[in-house]
Amino acid sequence: VPANSPNSERRSGDPAWILGVDIGGTNIVVGAVPFEGADAQGVKSMPTQPERGADSVVARVAEMVNETVAWLEREHGASRDTIAGVGIGSPGPLNRAKGIVINTPNLGWRDFPLRDLVSEAVGFQATLDNDANCATFGEWWMGAGRSYDNLVGMTLGTGIGGGMVLNGELVHGASDSAGEIGHMTVDLTGRKCKCGNYGCLEAYCSGPNIAARAVEGLDIAENSILSELVGGDLEQITAATVYEAAIRNDRYANEVLAETAKILAAGVGNIINVLNPQAIVIFGGVTRAGDHLFVPLRAEIRRRAFRSAADACAILPAALPDTAGVVGAAGVFKKTVFGRV
Amino acid sequence: VPANSPNSERRSGDPAWILGVDIGGTNIVVGAVPFEGADAQGVKSMPTQPERGADSVVARVAEMVNETVAWLEREHGASRDTIAGVGIGSPGPLNRAKGIVINTPNLGWRDFPLRDLVSEAVGFQATLDNDANCATFGEWWMGAGRSYDNLVGMTLGTGIGGGMVLNGELVHGASDSAGEIGHMTVDLTGRKCKCGNYGCLEAYCSGPNIAARAVEGLDIAENSILSELVGGDLEQITAATVYEAAIRNDRYANEVLAETAKILAAGVGNIINVLNPQAIVIFGGVTRAGDHLFVPLRAEIRRRAFRSAADACAILPAALPDTAGVVGAAGVFKKTVFGRV
Repeated sequence: VPANSPNSERRSGDPAWILGVDIGGTNIVVGAVPFEGADAQGVKSMPTQPERGADSVVARVAEMVNETVAWLEREHGASRDTIAGVGIGSPGPLNRAKGIVINTPNLGWRDFPLRDLVSEAVGFQATLDNDANCATFGEWWMGAGRSYDNLVGMTLGTGIGGGMVLNGELVHGASDSAGEIGHMTVDLTGRKCKCGNYGCLEAYCSGPNIAARAVEGLDIAENSILSELVGGDLEQITAATVYEAAIRNDRYANEVLAETAKILAAGVGNIINVLNPQAIVIFGGVTRAGDHLFVPLRAEIRRRAFRSAADACAILPAALPDTAGVVGAAGVFKKTVFGRV
Repeated sequence: VPANSPNSERRSGDPAWILGVDIGGTNIVVGAVPFEGADAQGVKSMPTQPERGADSVVARVAEMVNETVAWLEREHGASRDTIAGVGIGSPGPLNRAKGIVINTPNLGWRDFPLRDLVSEAVGFQATLDNDANCATFGEWWMGAGRSYDNLVGMTLGTGIGGGMVLNGELVHGASDSAGEIGHMTVDLTGRKCKCGNYGCLEAYCSGPNIAARAVEGLDIAENSILSELVGGDLEQITAATVYEAAIRNDRYANEVLAETAKILAAGVGNIINVLNPQAIVIFGGVTRAGDHLFVPLRAEIRRRAFRSAADACAILPAALPDTAGVVGAAGVFKKTVFGRV
């Protein structure tokens, strides 16, 4: 029995496991989370393949959940009735009470009753919350945010999202859409964002927009290796290309990252001034830029935010970068059904 | 009397009253708030006169509290032991646990133990929270925000501040400085703010900055009555002058307000996208601009924020514009000492 594993023998009281499901645009991740809390075990990841349709995604989730149940039976001698249920994290916007995904451009779903379809397919009770909330809740429950009551999670990837645990509770807001950190205006008349607004944080600092800004300025950059890294095909430049060039001390790529840090600091500074969190946990590919981004980011945050609030706020990489969503989805299930974590 | 701990004096049953004190840069307001909640009664307001020194302000607060106790005895036949204690709201930043005001430029205080000095002077237990939190809590407890679990208060005056009640609890943050809504960056390279940052919401939309922007553009404005309203002395133009001109259909003043609405909407939109509140309650002189500000503001918010979140959020004027701070200070006292409101 691995460390941190709960007693695997049949108990008549509390259940021993919760299954966590993290549905992303690229992959579905499923794992078993000990009821009293620990990192996920028996974790599996498979491609989402949303182009095969919503029913196919539900079938794949059900298959992965069933495999995880079989794994628990085999590895831990767990029986089905020691499993409390399934927590699901999905891109939003969604309606938690109804368990419906309202609209996800990346998955192509609209008013899709994800929670109940999964629940029926696997024969367990299920809950639904959005992916960024789940990741934040996972880091708060069992990751980098364990010791904090006030924590903000920030996902920097294809888009920029977020979640908030304040006074020890996830903040969902009036219509389950709290945490849209990427769509704070930081530049009134700035870049057009795909949300329709101008000057959103995401319009500068999402992965695709970091790449787009790098390409836009490339024709006046001197001696940058960016073009070389993609064999001259500028359309192949991604944020990861920019990080790679920066790590190789490419001056232009580092300028792009310094500018990114400056703009990101305005967004992070806004969060610090408004919420005064004890920590901000950062998820996503952007963390691969390491010190090339985080050193200027921390300096810029101190310029933007109130000193006492900035000093009180740790900026941390995720401790569970691959499983926070699974752990958090299970934590949300427990909190919703049992009223505690 | 040790503060933030249950009342050490003998009591039979629940108390009937809490005294609320709202200390502002201009006025001190004191009133008696029924223990089970209602608007403040026997409300008095006196000039703060901070230039006379901190001890003089404490003496004035004590005098006003004693008068309110005498009023309760006279008008309600209340005895001292039916009064639970005193809730104090003050400009911050402050340390709630220690009851200390850390630093208020407007009052000239630094590490000032306001709570205990007031408590000793009046012989009641006391609590301390910041003015914007108290005003927001007052509106949530007994004002425009009564029916909401997720409420943001926004004070638009000499500065721009705020408070948040989320999941039914005030959000104080890691170092009691949550709610600095006025210091969100909305324009990366914009106007210098007195906080040291550039492009803060407050640098455009506080009363003095609305006036400053109006004066800055006045030399190219045609036929504006602004100058006339102040007898040609442009230094006399305040935000109130701009509202007055706008109400008289001055085209330039209305342009200034439309621009103000546009920038304010970026800040309000950020709050809506990040917190998805059920309502934002607006306090302060700016509400006097009425539809000249609020009609374009509501339209701009719908351009900036996610539609579903904007639709879910009521933008309301304060229901207790003069007493929310007093009611909320008393509510914070009750919540702190009795664990409930």
